[in-house]
Amino acid sequence: MKLLHTDTLQEAREKLERHTQSFPVQVKWVKSREARNRVCACDVYAGENVPSFRRSTVDGFAVLAEDSFGAGESNPVFLEVAERIPIEKKARIPLESGQAAQVQTGSMIPEGAAAVVMAEYCEAYAADKILVNKSVSAGENIAQIGEDIRKGERLIRRGQKITSREIGMLASLGIKKVLVAEPFTVTIISTGDELTDPEEGGMEEDGTTKEQTEENGSMPESRIRDINSWSLAALAEENGFLVRECIRTGDVESDICQAVLRGSEQSDIVVLSGGSSKGEKDYSLSALEQAAGTILTHGISIKPGKPTILACDQKRQTILAGLPGHPLAAWLMFRLLLCDWQEKKLGLPKKRLLPAVMQENVSSNQGRETCLLVRLQEVREEEEEMGAGVLYGACPVYTKSGSISSLSRADGFLLIPRNREGLKKGERVYVELW
Amino acid sequence: MKLLHTDTLQEAREKLERHTQSFPVQVKWVKSREARNRVCACDVYAGENVPSFRRSTVDGFAVLAEDSFGAGESNPVFLEVAERIPIEKKARIPLESGQAAQVQTGSMIPEGAAAVVMAEYCEAYAADKILVNKSVSAGENIAQIGEDIRKGERLIRRGQKITSREIGMLASLGIKKVLVAEPFTVTIISTGDELTDPEEGGMEEDGTTKEQTEENGSMPESRIRDINSWSLAALAEENGFLVRECIRTGDVESDICQAVLRGSEQSDIVVLSGGSSKGEKDYSLSALEQAAGTILTHGISIKPGKPTILACDQKRQTILAGLPGHPLAAWLMFRLLLCDWQEKKLGLPKKRLLPAVMQENVSSNQGRETCLLVRLQEVREEEEEMGAGVLYGACPVYTKSGSISSLSRADGFLLIPRNREGLKKGERVYVELW
Repeated sequence: MKLLHTDTLQEAREKLERHTQSFPVQVKWVKSREARNRVCACDVYAGENVPSFRRSTVDGFAVLAEDSFGAGESNPVFLEVAERIPIEKKARIPLESGQAAQVQTGSMIPEGAAAVVMAEYCEAYAADKILVNKSVSAGENIAQIGEDIRKGERLIRRGQKITSREIGMLASLGIKKVLVAEPFTVTIISTGDELTDPEEGGMEEDGTTKEQTEENGSMPESRIRDINSWSLAALAEENGFLVRECIRTGDVESDICQAVLRGSEQSDIVVLSGGSSKGEKDYSLSALEQAAGTILTHGISIKPGKPTILACDQKRQTILAGLPGHPLAAWLMFRLLLCDWQEKKLGLPKKRLLPAVMQENVSSNQGRETCLLVRLQEVREEEEEMGAGVLYGACPVYTKSGSISSLSRADGFLLIPRNREGLKKGERVYVELW
Repeated sequence: MKLLHTDTLQEAREKLERHTQSFPVQVKWVKSREARNRVCACDVYAGENVPSFRRSTVDGFAVLAEDSFGAGESNPVFLEVAERIPIEKKARIPLESGQAAQVQTGSMIPEGAAAVVMAEYCEAYAADKILVNKSVSAGENIAQIGEDIRKGERLIRRGQKITSREIGMLASLGIKKVLVAEPFTVTIISTGDELTDPEEGGMEEDGTTKEQTEENGSMPESRIRDINSWSLAALAEENGFLVRECIRTGDVESDICQAVLRGSEQSDIVVLSGGSSKGEKDYSLSALEQAAGTILTHGISIKPGKPTILACDQKRQTILAGLPGHPLAAWLMFRLLLCDWQEKKLGLPKKRLLPAVMQENVSSNQGRETCLLVRLQEVREEEEEMGAGVLYGACPVYTKSGSISSLSRADGFLLIPRNREGLKKGERVYVELW
């Protein structure tokens, strides 16, 4: 296959970002309790202080701190218990010098009080009198107003994924709904005369192979199962996309065009796999051209994944991506292009990279980037000193671009830059985990 | 609060594991396409080879390798085209010396052929004749049977979470269903007279504060919102548990007992939060004792999280956990105890730790473990040499155990062992990310 002009991955990403700037992000209010895994669509600020009143952090007696000064086992201070404050009630009486208020962990601190003496340092002396035998300083054992969350503070950033931790914060503030981004919708089209439904023929769940003949058409020996429909749909879902439909077509140009059009009407992204090269039956380019008018990229200088097409249907505000038919390359290019695009569009945080040490020499083509799958291995640290040694080794997972199993054998990948001839054993690399 | 005998985290985990050994893991067949995020309940093996027949990896002509030997631009070899093999059809004619078969990427290789010459090295010469001007070695441009996946190979381990990568493999083999573990079910009970529903009062979605008075009962000033119901339910869901019900009760022993019993009847795990200390209104211990008979653990020597209770209702095969009322401590103890328990029960892989360098001195109590929340920071590598320097710095997130916001501010945590007085700035640590 000859693609005369190719873009770098970076160029292709920038083109895609630039040409979709006007594409909208749909947003929606959802209940905070049900917002797990959604992406916040605007910054969320605290409307209250947490705690909203001064609370005791222990069981004991709230006092004016100066009343306890000098108190000790040998010279206890006598105080009058002015009030007992149950955890669910308001403190009613402002405390004066010589007085104490009994509190539980979580109770409101009465006005005037400045510290709490833990119960074990207090002794009942008479009905409403106690002996305090420990000195406390102002603020001791009190959670101050706004100590956890200050009113006006930013709680959640736009683009942050909402987890149980943010849901806890939202609960503490009584924020009932949050504005989240609606998932981008995807239509996945697998093309190829050789493809059959993965559910035809093959293994039954009990591990026996069902007998299939060419006559009943379910899995002739020369055909292969459509992996991409399943793996790309699952990858899309893993990344928060909503899969509208998976369509399988033969290598028939009009069928492919129709599927692309249908996808463009119903979703934000149309992903074609197969037919993106320049062979006899490669209709992806013309189908995407017909739908989009202009092609942004045909050919990316990356291995695997070179025969990749990107286009934008500006009328329907749809991204059209023609990915390679090879399952590994298709999966990787979806991740490198469309997940990356979504990351920028929604403002998601960049993926954290894991530092590791290459365990073998690896060669790569100069002039094009290489996406190298690696498996992680724990390696012994050579020195126990601070900052020395590294915990993980990266072992290359050798693969052909048609291999789907290598994805499952690897823990992640790294990109070898175009200006490198490869990586050396012992070199520090940064692995993007799956 | 005085808890005379406390377990270490390790001891508490081992007790829980030991006392639940007979508790079953429910399993279920699910469609492979829909198995994403489920945990595989048994090893899965390949019932076929992938590819199941020899396939061309390029467009070109399949040949007997020796026919091409010595071929070059100046002395091409003449071959007769015996067959054209479309990608979706079987090869019918065994190839003999002097013959070639036209193939596409993915076409079946005919019997007898041993290599494929790429189309660009072949020239049409007559109707059924070609000139080959390049020599190929045996096996060149052919994907061999079983090259991606070998029949009998293990594809997925028991305990492995199924992702898009495994779904791709399952598709390639036509495995329609996989046996997965049913999620463990959880009932969450929040206790405390001071608790109100987070949806009462507070912020509306548009950021304005609704006026609430004590009279309408929705959010009196002295009360606080029930954070744990939301944060623990979301944490459970995040980890694949199924939340059956969230129940909120006041500090009324009979109500708590009833809720525990109900939870024990309907789910695998009952989580109580609040009331796990030894205060006046702490009924968790007696409620769990009544349901379970024996208490495994009351008090774990960890900060935060000390007032934690573990028990097992052997009759109903339910784990009963009494967690602290403080939202941060409750969240952490759920993770440290129940997520860890599930990990062992299902055979999930251990969480990968990220090596980092402490950015500050941190002190901790000798004699009990400390769970330190940390935020990660990228730090400059001092040397570019292999294996030197570290990418991440760990900054402690200071927190009180009631603070829920600190969870969201942190990227993960680390455990400071009981025999340490703290961590030193510059020390290597291993962070478990959220």
